Amino acid sequence: MKKMGNISIRSYKPSGFIKRYQELVHNEMIPYQYHVLKDEVEGVAKSAAIENFINAGKALRGEEHGDFYGMVFQDSDVAKWIEAASYSLAVFPDKKLEKELDEVVNTVCQAQDEDGYLDTRFTISQKERRWQNLLEAHELYCAGHMMEAACAYYEATGKRNLLDVIVKNAEHIYNHFIVQKAEGYPGHPEVELALMKVYSITGNTHCLELAKHFIDCRGADPNYYEKERKRRDWQIWGNNPSDYAYQQSDMPLRDAKDAKGHAVRAAYLYSGMKDVATATEDKELSDACSRLWRSIVDRRMYITGGIGSTCHGEAFSTDYDLPSDTVYAETCASIALMMFASRMLADEINGEYADVMETAFYNTVLAGIQTDGKRFFYVNPLEAVPGISEVAQTQRHVKLTRPGWYGCACCPPNAARLISSIGKYAYGEKGNTLFCNLFAAGEVEFENGMKLCCQTDYPYSGEICYKTEGKGNIALRIPAWSKHFAVMKNGESLSVSPDKGYILISVVDGDEICLSLDISPRYVFASQYVPALSGKTAVCAGPLVYCFEGVDNGDDVLSLFADIERKPVFEKYDASLLGGTRKLKAFGYRREYQNSLYSDALPEMKEAELIGIPYCLWANRGKNQMRVWIPYTK
Amino acid sequence: MKKMGNISIRSYKPSGFIKRYQELVHNEMIPYQYHVLKDEVEGVAKSAAIENFINAGKALRGEEHGDFYGMVFQDSDVAKWIEAASYSLAVFPDKKLEKELDEVVNTVCQAQDEDGYLDTRFTISQKERRWQNLLEAHELYCAGHMMEAACAYYEATGKRNLLDVIVKNAEHIYNHFIVQKAEGYPGHPEVELALMKVYSITGNTHCLELAKHFIDCRGADPNYYEKERKRRDWQIWGNNPSDYAYQQSDMPLRDAKDAKGHAVRAAYLYSGMKDVATATEDKELSDACSRLWRSIVDRRMYITGGIGSTCHGEAFSTDYDLPSDTVYAETCASIALMMFASRMLADEINGEYADVMETAFYNTVLAGIQTDGKRFFYVNPLEAVPGISEVAQTQRHVKLTRPGWYGCACCPPNAARLISSIGKYAYGEKGNTLFCNLFAAGEVEFENGMKLCCQTDYPYSGEICYKTEGKGNIALRIPAWSKHFAVMKNGESLSVSPDKGYILISVVDGDEICLSLDISPRYVFASQYVPALSGKTAVCAGPLVYCFEGVDNGDDVLSLFADIERKPVFEKYDASLLGGTRKLKAFGYRREYQNSLYSDALPEMKEAELIGIPYCLWANRGKNQMRVWIPYTK
Repeated sequence: MKKMGNISIRSYKPSGFIKRYQELVHNEMIPYQYHVLKDEVEGVAKSAAIENFINAGKALRGEEHGDFYGMVFQDSDVAKWIEAASYSLAVFPDKKLEKELDEVVNTVCQAQDEDGYLDTRFTISQKERRWQNLLEAHELYCAGHMMEAACAYYEATGKRNLLDVIVKNAEHIYNHFIVQKAEGYPGHPEVELALMKVYSITGNTHCLELAKHFIDCRGADPNYYEKERKRRDWQIWGNNPSDYAYQQSDMPLRDAKDAKGHAVRAAYLYSGMKDVATATEDKELSDACSRLWRSIVDRRMYITGGIGSTCHGEAFSTDYDLPSDTVYAETCASIALMMFASRMLADEINGEYADVMETAFYNTVLAGIQTDGKRFFYVNPLEAVPGISEVAQTQRHVKLTRPGWYGCACCPPNAARLISSIGKYAYGEKGNTLFCNLFAAGEVEFENGMKLCCQTDYPYSGEICYKTEGKGNIALRIPAWSKHFAVMKNGESLSVSPDKGYILISVVDGDEICLSLDISPRYVFASQYVPALSGKTAVCAGPLVYCFEGVDNGDDVLSLFADIERKPVFEKYDASLLGGTRKLKAFGYRREYQNSLYSDALPEMKEAELIGIPYCLWANRGKNQMRVWIPYTK
Repeated sequence: MKKMGNISIRSYKPSGFIKRYQELVHNEMIPYQYHVLKDEVEGVAKSAAIENFINAGKALRGEEHGDFYGMVFQDSDVAKWIEAASYSLAVFPDKKLEKELDEVVNTVCQAQDEDGYLDTRFTISQKERRWQNLLEAHELYCAGHMMEAACAYYEATGKRNLLDVIVKNAEHIYNHFIVQKAEGYPGHPEVELALMKVYSITGNTHCLELAKHFIDCRGADPNYYEKERKRRDWQIWGNNPSDYAYQQSDMPLRDAKDAKGHAVRAAYLYSGMKDVATATEDKELSDACSRLWRSIVDRRMYITGGIGSTCHGEAFSTDYDLPSDTVYAETCASIALMMFASRMLADEINGEYADVMETAFYNTVLAGIQTDGKRFFYVNPLEAVPGISEVAQTQRHVKLTRPGWYGCACCPPNAARLISSIGKYAYGEKGNTLFCNLFAAGEVEFENGMKLCCQTDYPYSGEICYKTEGKGNIALRIPAWSKHFAVMKNGESLSVSPDKGYILISVVDGDEICLSLDISPRYVFASQYVPALSGKTAVCAGPLVYCFEGVDNGDDVLSLFADIERKPVFEKYDASLLGGTRKLKAFGYRREYQNSLYSDALPEMKEAELIGIPYCLWANRGKNQMRVWIPYTK
């Protein structure tokens, strides 16, 4: 069986930059989210997510119970927490957390109906409405998240109880859609990739068959959601079943050319598609995935790895429509993009996939989290201006500081599970070749028994050293942004050229491989096809996109111009700044103040230094202006 | 009695540039709109606007009749047509048109109820619902437009029948709101300024009292629209009565500081406010108008004189939120702005009011009309890109070519009435001083008996000559954009300095005054507070804003940069281009093609000539890119 997705390494123990974030997740986010889910945090909107499972268990046992509360996908908050906590437990052994996790898992297991059905909303009441509203009801979405949770919990603890529950649940779904031939496919994709994860762990071929079925029947004409809508006399929000593109049901997926609709749904779906394509060696489906990948990275992705440029449906827009200010770029969407990228990479070694994965991680995903781990962005703008962001009708959704836990709490637990499982994205293996996709400091154990110890201050340094245990090959990614690189093996220079973004080096026990990448700050330009970015440049350094905040630039970023003929330079690393970071300085001009709205006086330009910080750290110092893209002059 | 608004001259017979547009209105738009209103044009959505009046007449006489058809404000299409046709008739005597006009007016007169009520929707049926839904039902809006129509018809023909009808209608409204003390004020302002127009012609003080009443009670707490909503069990679109800012009901108007809400409604309202303030010498109200004016022109207006920067509610946004691409900038809103400006000017001589009036006219208003007079823009973007405009969710409302007659046909007849009455904006008088606000070629007769004959190729020339008849003063506006000027009287240079934007010259019969303005092309820059315009410049020449279209620039405007240290120059006037116009040439660079979405290669810049045409003429040569603001480099 071919391993799919990001599940091939045995363990990863972080150090350096990654450790800081994994600790933040372990020490702050997971405990906080646990208490939120149990409604133990004052001042946070009621979650009832755990309570719903308790009530579903009571309902099944015929005991007195409360009503379902919350969003229709409330169960997934618990699933994402179990998944994140499990990954985190694998990194940081923690008896207290394991006990909490066991309890939550036990509560979930007791909420499964005899026939395998598992969804608290329709178990607590409304059993007769099961599977009637795939468009809105999120039953398959919640099932998918619980499957991912079960896989993570099993891998972290070896405990099979939740895995058994979700396999029984998968069989229930299989029976409904395959044996009983019920029509339909998930309103919010997710279960496809989750089924493939269960398949890769358990070998259960019903899971593969079911995932393939959901991919194959999606978007066939006549449109399923319209048929479903006519059959039922109830709805939840009143989603329009004819908004085909929004729900990725406008055409069979094999024909898809453009990434469309709700960006999180789309990227989850493409991840599942790629899993199925790889497992079944389905070239036609794989080609569709490649086209969708190109659609995203060539025409519909922000420099930060953000996707979904419009708040209308939290969706992809048309090609090259990448506004910095009315943007959506949901944190979850970039997590989903990393999932898609990791699956493309697992099937086809190509540094581009890892480049995008890294861009999304270091920029949009990390920007989602406040440095204290307690507040979160859903929307990740590339430009924010107090007085306009949050206020203008077109920018009401664009916040200047991270809000706390939302009623719809998708992003915080999603970021937690991504960060705590980042080792699975950073490293991979095929046979006796170890892939270093991201330069994550720490110790890695591979399934094949080999080990790597990676030492680096990446992304604040381009020097990365690996010590190896075991005999085989090590494949190091050479990022496209690194203008040059050098690699040493046991102190001696190697002359190697990258093949599709990776260099391959044979290693034996105790070898030391040191890679040197060029992370010096660079100006980046967007295609002239992007109207919003004409005449503008961004500054990047290694994988980090930098931004310019008012607090570092005299409270006025909008007057700054970069002189692209003078290279930006790093400032000193400052351990006390924003948990430790490094500013950079670009050179250019500050326009003198113009009194009137319009003037025909040529603007006076004064020499100015432009101070940037990594984009992922913006909005940690109060509300102020922020700009990734600034006008340039030459 | 102090004359209000734009009604002080006796007649204006155009020549030159203005004649071309007034002829277009007379020869194309008015006949076309007449046939549309009578449902005689194939392929155009049913109007039924005239038929509604016929049916209302039948209903009143107890005859068999059809139902009301169309938008709730369908009557106003007829009113605006009567107004436009009347103005046009005053310019171009035309027996056929006068006959059509008399017939339409007669049809309208027969639709008035015995008690003075005049609105076809509630006359044909639903009489019991009169005045119940001021929020949505547009009864006062339609009444206002018919009052303006009646004034124009009376002035053009001397016929009083429609004037008598609307005075009776005004008395009916007075009785309802003043005598009977019914609560409320217009959902869509318009009747305020219309009542003031009737007052200025008839001296009917009930009209003044009623207009003042609607201004005074607006926005008082508790909110009237919420009370009204609770009282009635029916609605039209379901407008939210609590969207206070949208409907200018968030505070008493005397306290207003920011131009808010639906831009057309706002500017009509501010015009009415100014009329009342002037007539009643109400300084507090006048100060509120001045604050609203400053809010618009200092912080919320496009360089083209467009207002209302968001499609959400066709409304003003917050300060400095002036996006070029997601813009609304409705044609009607700029017409309304001209109306507000002309009233500010009538009360306080200051060239700034005329500058804004002129900017809105030559740019947004004229851009609304296709050169053949048959298609119209409602939305006037400052940047349009095929593939994104019309397509992206945030730009669905932004069209690349002018659509035909809409179901909601507000802009075309509004543009027709504005253009055919432009003489009233261009010229004014106070005592024996003649004001030349806009440089409109042609012959003008003033109420005081003096005459002017203006010869000029303005706006394509800065040379403007006036011959005078009669003794008095002539006040010539010196636009703020004219870097220098010269003025000759009977061939001899005069040394005069402008006072608040005007120079004053005493004249006797037969004097020739020649003004020379600097219309050479100039770069204009926006305040750094406008995030959308950072690093960008626009090119203007005289009152004309220029734009760069793909068709003149190798189908790629997005790669162009202006070099602001090299002045743009005019090309030769081309009588065969777009009805006669003059391109200009700016100098700068064209970025070489960049293959990838993002690249760190410094963009190669090649010297390039940038060809501009007047913004008002864009989109007359098929769908292509257009940009007013382009990046600059120095």
